[in-house]
Amino acid sequence: MAIIPAQKIESLLVEIFIAAQTPEDIARQVAASLTESSLMGVDSHGVMRVSLYVDQILSGDIKPAARPEIQQEAPTTAIVEGHWGFGIFAMEYAVNVAVEKAKKSHVASVGLTGCTHTGRLGQFAAQAAKRNVLVIISGGGRRQGPGVSVAPYGGAKPIFATNPYAIGMPGGHYGAVVADFATSTVAEGKLQVYRENRQPLPPGWIVDKAGNPSANVEDFYNGGMLLPFAGHKGYSLALVAEFLSSLLLGKPRHPTHWLHWNIIAIDVAAFRPIEDYLRDAEELLQETKSIPPMAGFEEVLLPGEPEDRTLQRRRLEGIPIPDQVWNKIENTARRVGVVPNMNLET
Amino acid sequence: MAIIPAQKIESLLVEIFIAAQTPEDIARQVAASLTESSLMGVDSHGVMRVSLYVDQILSGDIKPAARPEIQQEAPTTAIVEGHWGFGIFAMEYAVNVAVEKAKKSHVASVGLTGCTHTGRLGQFAAQAAKRNVLVIISGGGRRQGPGVSVAPYGGAKPIFATNPYAIGMPGGHYGAVVADFATSTVAEGKLQVYRENRQPLPPGWIVDKAGNPSANVEDFYNGGMLLPFAGHKGYSLALVAEFLSSLLLGKPRHPTHWLHWNIIAIDVAAFRPIEDYLRDAEELLQETKSIPPMAGFEEVLLPGEPEDRTLQRRRLEGIPIPDQVWNKIENTARRVGVVPNMNLET
Repeated sequence: MAIIPAQKIESLLVEIFIAAQTPEDIARQVAASLTESSLMGVDSHGVMRVSLYVDQILSGDIKPAARPEIQQEAPTTAIVEGHWGFGIFAMEYAVNVAVEKAKKSHVASVGLTGCTHTGRLGQFAAQAAKRNVLVIISGGGRRQGPGVSVAPYGGAKPIFATNPYAIGMPGGHYGAVVADFATSTVAEGKLQVYRENRQPLPPGWIVDKAGNPSANVEDFYNGGMLLPFAGHKGYSLALVAEFLSSLLLGKPRHPTHWLHWNIIAIDVAAFRPIEDYLRDAEELLQETKSIPPMAGFEEVLLPGEPEDRTLQRRRLEGIPIPDQVWNKIENTARRVGVVPNMNLET
Repeated sequence: MAIIPAQKIESLLVEIFIAAQTPEDIARQVAASLTESSLMGVDSHGVMRVSLYVDQILSGDIKPAARPEIQQEAPTTAIVEGHWGFGIFAMEYAVNVAVEKAKKSHVASVGLTGCTHTGRLGQFAAQAAKRNVLVIISGGGRRQGPGVSVAPYGGAKPIFATNPYAIGMPGGHYGAVVADFATSTVAEGKLQVYRENRQPLPPGWIVDKAGNPSANVEDFYNGGMLLPFAGHKGYSLALVAEFLSSLLLGKPRHPTHWLHWNIIAIDVAAFRPIEDYLRDAEELLQETKSIPPMAGFEEVLLPGEPEDRTLQRRRLEGIPIPDQVWNKIENTARRVGVVPNMNLET
């Protein structure tokens, strides 16, 4: 296990992406996003992704210099096409389009197509919430092939991706309140972390290809599947994400990338004076946090608060990176001609 | 147990509401809504509610002749004030406002205040979806007092109502696909049905006032609480509903009615030609339903399909009504001077 200061790993990532033909502004944005996710403890969407992204650049699945553009537009709607550039860059752009439209027209819905992996979705929910826009981001897409891993409620074959949601709520001095969850029992990225670390899975996360519960992560990658969370409720929300993305935008047809996205944005100031909204938001959040904890809990936390706390800690202490992940990152660097020079004590 | 034909009970409800000073058009709409919920097997929001509604008319908590009106309006937003008339009538009106705005401006968000009990929320999700508008309805409100029954994740005191969602998806020849769920482990209305029937609760539904699991529904009504579904996910969605309602609209201040509502509406034709959307929607729904069932299931159903099947059956067979519920309805009728004449064999 290496403990690496965030700035060092972020600089290395920038260097790697630039060496892999990524324009500097895009490289910085993607590196910052992955590093922030690692700082927050969301390692599945963190710096380990550099290896996959470089693989995808080299295979042609990510076009590192592609920039998103608006393909179709009205005052309250748009479709942004990412042209298979970095999904992190495209999503930030599309959320900005949605926020600007909400600021002008009160409410907006923006679709995003041609999009590669978007990193940690919560980042973009926070991006809108910090501008006092409530945002609901959801994704869905292809119904068979790679990435399709979740069965419908009562079904024994996967038909959905993990169809995730990120919802950003402007929280006044509490900052952006961010709910970020897959509609499966667990995000597929978390399975990748267990696979990297060769750990057994907690019970209830997956079933094998025959529909039997399993703690062996390899059973998932060998034809198994995830279940929707909370039965018919997670299933319903997976289906809603599917409607908002692949039905409003058309099915994704790329062999590697399987999600289209929808961003619903509401300017909170459209309904009442922003001071009134913010006062009530702070009161709600304060009241929620002051609820006494149940047995087994230390306190009531807001959505996103555990990640924010890990971020504060890892900013000081550095980001822990398992050896096999670090070896992969080093190999990735060498593949594009970058020599990591970290003086790491592992 | 009485089995009553839908038309007979619906006519009785119309008579009762009219006798309780409700204008005929409103009485018909409310009676039709309650009867449809009973037909669908959602008895908690069905004909048993007539007793509560008449109680609330007599106590002044429902103003039976009040009609909703638009209080504030822009092309994509509105706030509808219900003036404490029937919530079912106000919600139908507000959803219609949202649908009309979405048809003109593509996307809309409409708030609803001054609202009494809205009945089965799924009805209004279907109302929009049938017009090819995707709709997300959510409600939240007061943080203490009656109706506040759900603890935040990790908390030992209720702070939310059951903050429900109803989402309507236009499904082509599959009709309106309707997801309708509380963000608690179970809707409070279901607890009322168990209480009426004096049945023990399934495990995991409630905890008592000390935070211990209980199967005795009276423990809930004696200071106990519901938990959010799926831990932090249900908690997050409860909070989102709170933001969309009480933060955008201001806190409900009525002693009896504790929910404000938000309706987000998206015209699916804003993104692509309606024929393309409908073709893809039908394909998605057909593919979903053709997934082989897991052990313990007979088939994969769409959200809302179990209720639709019960509706078909009960239309033929009649609505089963437990004796103590029927006695209450009879007493309610007599309170307002209506003599039920049903020739029932119980």
